[in-house]
Amino acid sequence: MRGFVSFVSAGPGDPELLTLKAVDRLGKADVVLYDDLASGAILDRARKGAALVSVGKRAGRPSAKQEHVNRLLIDYALTGATVVRLKSGDAGIFGRLEEECEALRAAGIGYEIIPGVTSACAAAATSLIPLTRRHTARRVQFITGADVKGELPADLNFAALADPLAVTAVYMGKRTFPELAARLIAQGLSGETPALLAESIGHDDQRLLRTTIAKLAEQLARESVTATAVILYGALADEAS
Amino acid sequence: MRGFVSFVSAGPGDPELLTLKAVDRLGKADVVLYDDLASGAILDRARKGAALVSVGKRAGRPSAKQEHVNRLLIDYALTGATVVRLKSGDAGIFGRLEEECEALRAAGIGYEIIPGVTSACAAAATSLIPLTRRHTARRVQFITGADVKGELPADLNFAALADPLAVTAVYMGKRTFPELAARLIAQGLSGETPALLAESIGHDDQRLLRTTIAKLAEQLARESVTATAVILYGALADEAS
Repeated sequence: MRGFVSFVSAGPGDPELLTLKAVDRLGKADVVLYDDLASGAILDRARKGAALVSVGKRAGRPSAKQEHVNRLLIDYALTGATVVRLKSGDAGIFGRLEEECEALRAAGIGYEIIPGVTSACAAAATSLIPLTRRHTARRVQFITGADVKGELPADLNFAALADPLAVTAVYMGKRTFPELAARLIAQGLSGETPALLAESIGHDDQRLLRTTIAKLAEQLARESVTATAVILYGALADEAS
Repeated sequence: MRGFVSFVSAGPGDPELLTLKAVDRLGKADVVLYDDLASGAILDRARKGAALVSVGKRAGRPSAKQEHVNRLLIDYALTGATVVRLKSGDAGIFGRLEEECEALRAAGIGYEIIPGVTSACAAAATSLIPLTRRHTARRVQFITGADVKGELPADLNFAALADPLAVTAVYMGKRTFPELAARLIAQGLSGETPALLAESIGHDDQRLLRTTIAKLAEQLARESVTATAVILYGALADEAS
């Protein structure tokens, strides 16, 4: 008898931003494989007696062994277990979901994906900023600031990213933001473009910083990067306007 | 004594995709102002005795009276009520949130925004498609296919939208998709680009259709538009690959 894998979106960190469906799946799990970013109080929702297995990947760092995670998923499922693979934010957005889904398909193991609250939406809501606005913010786009080596991806569409009428959310982008900002400014985007750094959303050490892309680049070039963050920039509504 | 307004994201329609925080706020509400798209079983979560007030705006149709909705929000809050303003999907994405927030700020009424599962994430998850993939889908972007008059917005960044290495989600875009597809193809995007129509996600009449942008445009030009939908196109992973 084969088990089944539920990819469960854990949301941005606040356990109250889990969906009812995520809570249901956690409550039925035999095994929960979780990342560092999807842990803490969220794991309290797992069924008592469920095996909680850290697979320890962290945003922005070179990947641990994706092969190893795939292998664990398959091995647990082949025991007939009900497996939850917990991923932070929305599992489909910068969650490396496709690699794990492909491995399960190749092994003939069934799975489902439970969507969740992605970090950009949580950062905007916490900051009282709508991600879209009529006329002035017609397009919202999400990118990752870190490729598999932790570098700014070289093949980003910088023209699309330098559009002042879009709102852009950069995931895992603190370390590379100075380089990204320089590229955007070279493409013609003003250094005065509004930016928001949203760190550790929903956690005790949450930090929200309203600034500009030029100033944020300057600041992040000096800071050592620890807490995870989403950076928003572009046609940001001003909650005080 | 002034009341308080919680903008609550209702998610894509499936009541199980409400967050715990959304359920909490609904359970404490004196008044719930809801749109047609955020109704049904979701309203069963409202406190018994709460006043349920339809404000009847529908995606893709010319707006009902935004002024009227603003007025209702303010008037209820001024009675001291705990008000929930329920919006489908994530309230910050194509939810006309800024107009209502501005009205509350002008009236000196406090509010919060509870983020939720946006329809693009739900459509992708239900279809087992990750919205991003390493190398081939580095950018995901959301646009609306309908301006305030229901027309394709004229000032969209068509170059950014015709990028084959992005995944694009078009909200409220069924009626205008033939025109959008023609613009994308004129910009150089192949008519064979994969597309997914996701209709009534999480409802009994859910429909998922995998096709191409050219074929979807042809089909939608013939169909009368009733059910709401999200259209995904671009670098879509194939769940059967």
